[in-house]
Amino acid sequence: MKFNFSESVNRMKTSEIRELNKMASTPGLISLGGGMPSPETFPKKDLEEIMDYVMENFADLALQYGNTLGNDGAREVISGMLRKTEGIDTAMKNIIINSGSQQGLYELATVLANPGDTVITEEPTYVGAVSAFSANMLRMEGIEMDHQGMIVEKLEEKIKKLIGEGRNPRFIYVIPTFQNPTGYTMPEERRRVLIEISEKYNIPLVEDNPYGQLRYYGKPVNSIRSMRGGENTIYLGTFSKVMTPGLRLGYTVAPDEVMEKFNLIKQALDLATNSFSQYVALEYVRRGVIYSQIEENKKIYRVKRDRIVSALKENMDGMATWSEPEGGMFVWATLKGDIDTRMMRESAFKNGVAYVSGQAFTTNGTQRSSMRLNFTFGTPDQLEEGIKRIRKTVDSYIGKK
Amino acid sequence: MKFNFSESVNRMKTSEIRELNKMASTPGLISLGGGMPSPETFPKKDLEEIMDYVMENFADLALQYGNTLGNDGAREVISGMLRKTEGIDTAMKNIIINSGSQQGLYELATVLANPGDTVITEEPTYVGAVSAFSANMLRMEGIEMDHQGMIVEKLEEKIKKLIGEGRNPRFIYVIPTFQNPTGYTMPEERRRVLIEISEKYNIPLVEDNPYGQLRYYGKPVNSIRSMRGGENTIYLGTFSKVMTPGLRLGYTVAPDEVMEKFNLIKQALDLATNSFSQYVALEYVRRGVIYSQIEENKKIYRVKRDRIVSALKENMDGMATWSEPEGGMFVWATLKGDIDTRMMRESAFKNGVAYVSGQAFTTNGTQRSSMRLNFTFGTPDQLEEGIKRIRKTVDSYIGKK
Repeated sequence: MKFNFSESVNRMKTSEIRELNKMASTPGLISLGGGMPSPETFPKKDLEEIMDYVMENFADLALQYGNTLGNDGAREVISGMLRKTEGIDTAMKNIIINSGSQQGLYELATVLANPGDTVITEEPTYVGAVSAFSANMLRMEGIEMDHQGMIVEKLEEKIKKLIGEGRNPRFIYVIPTFQNPTGYTMPEERRRVLIEISEKYNIPLVEDNPYGQLRYYGKPVNSIRSMRGGENTIYLGTFSKVMTPGLRLGYTVAPDEVMEKFNLIKQALDLATNSFSQYVALEYVRRGVIYSQIEENKKIYRVKRDRIVSALKENMDGMATWSEPEGGMFVWATLKGDIDTRMMRESAFKNGVAYVSGQAFTTNGTQRSSMRLNFTFGTPDQLEEGIKRIRKTVDSYIGKK
Repeated sequence: MKFNFSESVNRMKTSEIRELNKMASTPGLISLGGGMPSPETFPKKDLEEIMDYVMENFADLALQYGNTLGNDGAREVISGMLRKTEGIDTAMKNIIINSGSQQGLYELATVLANPGDTVITEEPTYVGAVSAFSANMLRMEGIEMDHQGMIVEKLEEKIKKLIGEGRNPRFIYVIPTFQNPTGYTMPEERRRVLIEISEKYNIPLVEDNPYGQLRYYGKPVNSIRSMRGGENTIYLGTFSKVMTPGLRLGYTVAPDEVMEKFNLIKQALDLATNSFSQYVALEYVRRGVIYSQIEENKKIYRVKRDRIVSALKENMDGMATWSEPEGGMFVWATLKGDIDTRMMRESAFKNGVAYVSGQAFTTNGTQRSSMRLNFTFGTPDQLEEGIKRIRKTVDSYIGKK
């Protein structure tokens, strides 16, 4: 007996990221495509020790169902960490621990908006946000960016237009620091204007900050949530880049008024986050291992960032423009001429290199000549070789056209 | 600046289970309310050893992002386990590993139905299903049960009525073995009729089986998924009751046609399940520890089940009726006379005992004289004392009325 499953809505299209995962094990392939941290940044010895400690001392709790909003001890140390690394002042009661930051994005979409509502994002924006918002049937309006992130004048124009159409936006979602996919960082002055616009039109701000702790160059910029007027910003963070992604731990900081809604949706989604992971993270932060590991990661990634940027200079000069991010995990490169990077993917793959095409990150069908290049996963030599292979691909692709 | 968050839909109401969690740490309270396994069933020594092994041999993968549908090795051993304990024949490619079975329920609601659609459940049904289905704005129609589970004649009547109203049900959700909250088990003959009805009206069947491996008495009943004609049943299972709930691992078995949809929603929900937990479960099953642990759990819980049933006989005879489940975690008790168990909860709490009132499990506002009593978490003595306290509560509550 086969059922007819065809009537349920297809809320999402197959994503390029999925295809990438399938190719990941191809021998010889250099992937600049995924968003994976390097295993050399995993604090294995520390985690082994901490896991033993947790099993010795807290097994009954670490293996049991936990509270929906998260383990109180873990929420407490996250509060302390946010004060220390981000200057964010938040009580433990305003922290929700999620099964990765992706879950935080999904929760947002259900707590702050209803199906059919409009939300504002950067254009391009994080593919996982597109996926979480689409799954909740939200309409995304992307705001153009320059090297300083979302262009706030265009934001205000768009808000006025949307309000005029009766489509009041439910929230403004930004990744202001080392944005995914572009690597751009929004300077403090622009963040201030963003807060003003959010206040003026009474539209909640959402700050997603998975990379802020990984700055390799330049002066830190305050997080929006830590700024005056930014106290009601909803803030998303993660342990994926400063501990490990496999333990699936992210967190949301949210105002009192919405905590109950987060609690209810989290319960519907998976009852509670992995207790064991939370105990491990609790110890990892409490012992301060996280702070030395962040410094370690920065050393490793700074070298890689330099290598990919210099490889781009050597190989792509005049053929493309690219961001030179001061931190994070990604470089955004845009090819000159009329090249569709999605069409070019197959040639690139044949040449032994993978990237994610710009279209994966778009809210409006643009970005077709761009590509996102990850520089945290490969070795420095692989990164250089990967860029050479992209150059080779572009050369032959132009030749064929 | 405070935003106006009030416009987003309240998809769910505060649940009794949440309140229960808050009370859980009250000194002296005997909780028959939660659905927690006993920590004495956690295979701590084995898990410690397995965790060390995973960190020694697979740390780079166990700490990294994993595939959205799950670790292939883990999917493979789950396929083997299902063959062995449930007689279910399924390929690894039809298994999705979830962050707990709750996530499987949430996924179902998005993959098989659209907001506003109608689905069929047992009445009463699992509170987590009510929560996942409500969050997706599904309308639930509960079918009355007797001691043999869902009454299939009433099911067919209801389906005809719904189709007549243009509300074709999207799926039929059942917990046929040691049902939550009632403890009832549907005999094979009735399962067969269920399959027939599902075929006749082309409505997919969903079999949720978190307790099937925990049978203390009687002859095993085949799972619907393992029966002839049941091959396209969507099946939900979990490691929470036969390993630990804190590692948050559940799984869905689904037909080819819907795997891509499950993949996409899972990616939107949390990218992938905890890799470390999956490696641990893989080893736990591969080494066969799970099978001896299941036998261990059955020994421990059989004693508890007997104790709560005998305590009910001694203390509640003539005042209530109750189920005498052959397995699982719950007894369903219904008080005689016009007692609202939700109203009585506060008195019970003052007397040092907690339960979940019948209304928490209803799809239609009934079940007000019933209560769900968990017998896996407390010690046998606590279970007996808990029932005595309920008796005392009923006595004084009737006196006061």
